[in-house]
Amino acid sequence: MSDSNLSKHISNITELVQDYLKHNLEQKWELSPHFAQTAQILTQLHSADIAQLLESLPLNERMCVWQATTNDRFGDILLEVSDAVKASLLADLEDHEIISAAQNLDADELADLTPELPKDIVNELMQSLDEQQRQRVNSALSYAENQVGSLMDFDMITIRDDVTLEVVLRYIRRLKEIPTQTDKIFVIDKNGNLTGVLPFKLLLLNDPDKKVNEVMATNSIIFKASEDAHEAALAFERYDLVTTPVIDDNGKLIGRLSVDAVLDLVREESETEVLNMAGLREEEDLFAPVWHSVRNRWSWLAINLVTAFIASRVIGLFEDSIEKLVVLATLMPIIAGMGGNSGNQTITMIVRAIALEQIKTGNTSYLMVKELSVALINGIIWGSVIALITWLLYDNFALSVVMIAAMILNLLLAALMGVIIPMMRLFLNKDPALGSSVMITAITDSGGFFIFLSLATIFLL
Amino acid sequence: MSDSNLSKHISNITELVQDYLKHNLEQKWELSPHFAQTAQILTQLHSADIAQLLESLPLNERMCVWQATTNDRFGDILLEVSDAVKASLLADLEDHEIISAAQNLDADELADLTPELPKDIVNELMQSLDEQQRQRVNSALSYAENQVGSLMDFDMITIRDDVTLEVVLRYIRRLKEIPTQTDKIFVIDKNGNLTGVLPFKLLLLNDPDKKVNEVMATNSIIFKASEDAHEAALAFERYDLVTTPVIDDNGKLIGRLSVDAVLDLVREESETEVLNMAGLREEEDLFAPVWHSVRNRWSWLAINLVTAFIASRVIGLFEDSIEKLVVLATLMPIIAGMGGNSGNQTITMIVRAIALEQIKTGNTSYLMVKELSVALINGIIWGSVIALITWLLYDNFALSVVMIAAMILNLLLAALMGVIIPMMRLFLNKDPALGSSVMITAITDSGGFFIFLSLATIFLL
Repeated sequence: MSDSNLSKHISNITELVQDYLKHNLEQKWELSPHFAQTAQILTQLHSADIAQLLESLPLNERMCVWQATTNDRFGDILLEVSDAVKASLLADLEDHEIISAAQNLDADELADLTPELPKDIVNELMQSLDEQQRQRVNSALSYAENQVGSLMDFDMITIRDDVTLEVVLRYIRRLKEIPTQTDKIFVIDKNGNLTGVLPFKLLLLNDPDKKVNEVMATNSIIFKASEDAHEAALAFERYDLVTTPVIDDNGKLIGRLSVDAVLDLVREESETEVLNMAGLREEEDLFAPVWHSVRNRWSWLAINLVTAFIASRVIGLFEDSIEKLVVLATLMPIIAGMGGNSGNQTITMIVRAIALEQIKTGNTSYLMVKELSVALINGIIWGSVIALITWLLYDNFALSVVMIAAMILNLLLAALMGVIIPMMRLFLNKDPALGSSVMITAITDSGGFFIFLSLATIFLL
Repeated sequence: MSDSNLSKHISNITELVQDYLKHNLEQKWELSPHFAQTAQILTQLHSADIAQLLESLPLNERMCVWQATTNDRFGDILLEVSDAVKASLLADLEDHEIISAAQNLDADELADLTPELPKDIVNELMQSLDEQQRQRVNSALSYAENQVGSLMDFDMITIRDDVTLEVVLRYIRRLKEIPTQTDKIFVIDKNGNLTGVLPFKLLLLNDPDKKVNEVMATNSIIFKASEDAHEAALAFERYDLVTTPVIDDNGKLIGRLSVDAVLDLVREESETEVLNMAGLREEEDLFAPVWHSVRNRWSWLAINLVTAFIASRVIGLFEDSIEKLVVLATLMPIIAGMGGNSGNQTITMIVRAIALEQIKTGNTSYLMVKELSVALINGIIWGSVIALITWLLYDNFALSVVMIAAMILNLLLAALMGVIIPMMRLFLNKDPALGSSVMITAITDSGGFFIFLSLATIFLL
């Protein structure tokens, strides 16, 4: 469908719903003509587009659209929306609707959904599955979020290696359906162990009389289900992969990793990074009740209050000095603020390079020297600028010297900690990104106030 | 190749190079046995892995590895490394090496590389191309970085619609090579206009006697080269695409967009967002000369100095008040800091929702009411906490009341501007993300100092 068509449909739906909510509140939504029209337009939209629409509507409008969606779409849509919106949609469904929606899903999709569902519904669901499906759901659920196993699906075509390509072609034609994104067939032996892969490319390029084991690729990229998902995503980017087989620790083929799951992971990782940098705990439904938002923003604000309070106590140590020379209070935020910005530059670079596996703990001293040099130069440059301005404003040469010295020292502190903090966390096997910005800012604030005010106390008073 | 093999090779190379640099500086690198061994290991690595290795080495080690790489890999490697590292590698090549490296590349890859090359080399290169290649390079270069045309490649297989699938299968078999990530063939009429696509899926599932026009898909996703690349990426994510045709404004097929280019774009967009949030202008070579890093961090530090200076002038207005009640200087950073964190939470949410196309300017008032409510609640909660602490520390009830009032007001200001700034930029068709964090922090700093100090001046002095 063309883009203009899509946005026309979406604005039609929005108008219908808003019109109903404005004028027809005495008539039930399901009985209104608006409902029928909305439902009709919705049938023409892709589930992913309906999901996007639901994300972008306030709660009451969202529920109208959701109710006008046919039951068979529920499963696909629930998979596409963010966790926050998912909760609001699930809350509107009866148990039996959830179960019938879930029954349309593949095993890996079911595994994605179950953590959000009430326990008794999950039990009922699992009992309605056949043995293979149940095993697959359990297998997918047995891996942590950061493991390849939690991203894999089971949409694969498998063959033996002793048949001809002609046979493979006939076998595929009989399947009637090929899973999306399939670009290769997995070759297994009689124990289910992976022996190679047959890309469609090789299937199409080679003489149909050849056997699979003559043309199949045996050195292609394979992941174990227990491997790190982030590293698998980097490999997809590096080698331009579309799908890869996933095996267990014994070499048995158990699933498939595809580029759409990788794309979602890359997007999600970057979201999480940005959200955490900004002090949000998790993704937030834009139209969630106020109370949800308050709770989501709670934890970082609390941390921030503690760090701000510490910085305030540092200033408190120097109240006598400030009383004697009040301009210190005026100038101190400049030192702290520049340190914060500079420290964030350093720590962000280091954290990113760690995530992209460009640095190891061995590089620490090299990077430290470099960052300290950059900080020294920046400190001299910006310290001089602000010292000059200070001199012009307050005509106090000693104060200007204190400004430049404090700027240089705080930028050096920022660089030092900007390298040490993520490297320490890497060394301790912790996530170097989490809270890095808050930590470095706390240090450059308290440190900046301390450096500036103590220099001033020593040399100016 | 397995992961453990890869990291073994990489650590072997690193050891060889470091060992040479330590002990053999009197012998030329090219003549040393270390060189031959390094070159030998490099032949076993994928170009993308060599690129990754080059990124993660300090400059002198990087150059040793680069010199041990065979010329035929230069082009592929240059495409994989970041712009910053690319410059260091190109600087080491002779003109004729650059030209021969570039001649191994496809037209779209060449277009990616040319902006970094000296003008006379580009001219020489263009003259060495055949007519079709030159047209393709020019076509790719004619689009802006944010347009689909700049991401497309020309690796496509095209067919007419009046042949049978059997003919298509035979045609493909004769090609000897199918471009990576190909999942569909593009169907064109005699004028080169796109009439449909034939996914391998349909080619393999259908009876070979059927004609292409009986089985081809005519309603699949197509992009115009002039369309927005970001929106195309969102469509790839939504619809789980692998490749799509790219047409010009007249419907003529001119290229292909593939998921590997989309994956790179998503990664790049998220990098840019994080870098800008942290005050870095662009991606930085970790091992670049200090001077490069200083320049990269320059602009944001300058902006930060200006905003910090403004905040400082705001405090300057109240020097009399601070002189009378020095505890104001101690407490003011808490109000400013909490406002900054809270404002960043709001603006990040709004900027993200705009990027994911979840909100339009029409939602402004709804979001404003919500964010103001969240800010009010947070202001009351955290304002009370800090007011209580203030009361315990300073035993000054009026001061506590000023703290809570200032906290609420600054958080309301943060919420208001956190919604207004990105919405204004969206309305003016500007990038809502760029500098958003710096702007909101500037407002909550200056605003926070002003609110707190003026309330204190009015009610406490």
